[in-house]
Amino acid sequence: MREVAVISTGLTAFGAFPERSIRDLGAEAGRECLDACDAPPEAVDGFYLGCFAGPAFTGQNHLAPWVAAAIGLNGVPATRFEAACASSGAAFAHAWAAVAGGLQDLALVVGVEQMTTQTTARTTEILASAGEVDSEVAAGANFPALFALIARRHMHELGTTREHLAAVAVKNHANGALNPKAHLRKPITLEKALAGRPVCDPLTLYDCSLISDGAAALLLAPVEQAARWTDRPVRVLGVGQASDRLALADKADITTFPAVRRAAQKAYAMAGVGPRDIDFAEVHDCFTIAELIALEDLGFFQRGQAGPASLAGKTALTGELPINPSGGLKSKGHPVGATGAAQIVEVVRQLRGACGQRQLEEASIGLTQNLGGSGASAVVGVFGK
Amino acid sequence: MREVAVISTGLTAFGAFPERSIRDLGAEAGRECLDACDAPPEAVDGFYLGCFAGPAFTGQNHLAPWVAAAIGLNGVPATRFEAACASSGAAFAHAWAAVAGGLQDLALVVGVEQMTTQTTARTTEILASAGEVDSEVAAGANFPALFALIARRHMHELGTTREHLAAVAVKNHANGALNPKAHLRKPITLEKALAGRPVCDPLTLYDCSLISDGAAALLLAPVEQAARWTDRPVRVLGVGQASDRLALADKADITTFPAVRRAAQKAYAMAGVGPRDIDFAEVHDCFTIAELIALEDLGFFQRGQAGPASLAGKTALTGELPINPSGGLKSKGHPVGATGAAQIVEVVRQLRGACGQRQLEEASIGLTQNLGGSGASAVVGVFGK
Repeated sequence: MREVAVISTGLTAFGAFPERSIRDLGAEAGRECLDACDAPPEAVDGFYLGCFAGPAFTGQNHLAPWVAAAIGLNGVPATRFEAACASSGAAFAHAWAAVAGGLQDLALVVGVEQMTTQTTARTTEILASAGEVDSEVAAGANFPALFALIARRHMHELGTTREHLAAVAVKNHANGALNPKAHLRKPITLEKALAGRPVCDPLTLYDCSLISDGAAALLLAPVEQAARWTDRPVRVLGVGQASDRLALADKADITTFPAVRRAAQKAYAMAGVGPRDIDFAEVHDCFTIAELIALEDLGFFQRGQAGPASLAGKTALTGELPINPSGGLKSKGHPVGATGAAQIVEVVRQLRGACGQRQLEEASIGLTQNLGGSGASAVVGVFGK
Repeated sequence: MREVAVISTGLTAFGAFPERSIRDLGAEAGRECLDACDAPPEAVDGFYLGCFAGPAFTGQNHLAPWVAAAIGLNGVPATRFEAACASSGAAFAHAWAAVAGGLQDLALVVGVEQMTTQTTARTTEILASAGEVDSEVAAGANFPALFALIARRHMHELGTTREHLAAVAVKNHANGALNPKAHLRKPITLEKALAGRPVCDPLTLYDCSLISDGAAALLLAPVEQAARWTDRPVRVLGVGQASDRLALADKADITTFPAVRRAAQKAYAMAGVGPRDIDFAEVHDCFTIAELIALEDLGFFQRGQAGPASLAGKTALTGELPINPSGGLKSKGHPVGATGAAQIVEVVRQLRGACGQRQLEEASIGLTQNLGGSGASAVVGVFGK
């Protein structure tokens, strides 16, 4: 197995761009990624597109060759990967496998979603199809409802409070305000977060991530060939992907995501590190409660301790374990198919010291955690210089 | 790179099963595949689901973990692969890469589609989204229309006739009549095929494949470990995947599919064989013209010669190069996400001598060709004993 490096990245602004297209957004990120390391499109061996629900949002299916041609790739294998909100995490994991296994030397990953083409009601309905339609959707449960159940149970069993949840939102808004690519660049106070308009009790507006358009790109190569393209390769130290049952009702415990635990275990084992070796992480805060559970499932905090730690500032940009320096899904935005790749873009750029105002002081090993649905898909990556 | 074998297969009946579900169909094929070689679900390392438009046909997205859990897989990486009608060809290619690259020892591929849940008009609309929506669909071009353009041009430039097209339908109906899993088991005459109800001139009803439900499964392992599971492994000699522009208007020549030529070139080179070494093939006859173009792009016949060869019986079950012994998409049926995997199931079963009435006498090396859209995706595989 070859060691793999991320040798280049690309990222569009995240925001509301209903007049653009998946092709346009994906091609912008893909071309930026190739141009940044002077890689000609003809050198790319394979194209990995992460996109959750492009056909439902835009009417266009068969997206991978469409975006590949717009980037100028010439006839390479082009496939769309779908694992709900972990779609580009899955695309990355399979691209990594092709390079690690010696089958490809230059693999281009693009994650993209365009969500503002539809009404909020229709968007919520499209997103709900990542849950079990026959049981959950039929019972009226969309994602705010599912994560509200999860939050309520976490509060009941583990003592998490509304303040703990709000602290995640405040921190991510503060970080996102320093990110020029973020959808929302607006710091908020704890009071404001607590007084947010109710969405699904106990979650308010400030506990929910954004409906965004955007794309992110990554170029992977074997470490031994990285110097040909860049003097700042970032090593992929570990990768883990795992799955679980779709419906919350089929899970033994909804306050933890076994797929995240499994994926993390694999990624840590491959990297030869543990939670204490991680300097910072980008985690999947589709809802504030999801960030707290991620921090516990990844082994950063004991169960029930992620909330108090967040309220105490331990996960802030200047805390002992900065989480979501990009602003996370809450403030940077959550174009679902782009999110997994965008998390890796942030980690790579932090490791390269290229994050401007939000640059972390200590950034040697970073982690990404990408979640699909209410925990049925998960991808974890560990990255180092 | 490790040599890879298909060690087991699974296949549901193809037909109209609107009361079933993607999970139900996919799990039936997946479980049959594991049971046939006594592989416990816990031994599987990765799950590769090919499905084109499950969310549009059924409302359920995030399909891979849903089907994986129903098969009894326990938390393995589970991803859906989409490349239009080549979705399970793409899933197979990525599963092959994971095993060949040494990353996984047992990879389960399932291809599935359920299409009869919708009206024919809505189904045609869903399928049309594999073409370029902004240009082709906006101009009213669905797939029968696109392939009618292709057929007309092939007739104009290369002398193909209505009889040549009809001969493909007659042959595939004859083969399908011998396949207990086929959707349509009804031999037709050349006269009947020629007198078919017009769909989009020059294509009649008998030039078009079927709208079907069904699933197919494949289990892959390194050749060196195959004996643990089966005494009849089938070797994957070569695999090629390629892409092209989405819209016909962006192609230089619509009578040939460069993605198929590229994919075949890769697969032949890896296998160390050429078109003359292939004993039989399953090709993507979504329309009769697509089978003729496939036979030319794969190098079996010179351009313009596939039609006369088909009319002369060369591609019949008893001909010199049997094509689509299963009955093909025309008669076996075309649940689009299942098709690529189902083609491989047929080739594996022919190589194992397990095809009953339609068993070929000479079956040492078989080929599969899976097409997405009007040629923007293609996967070719070469298999041997």
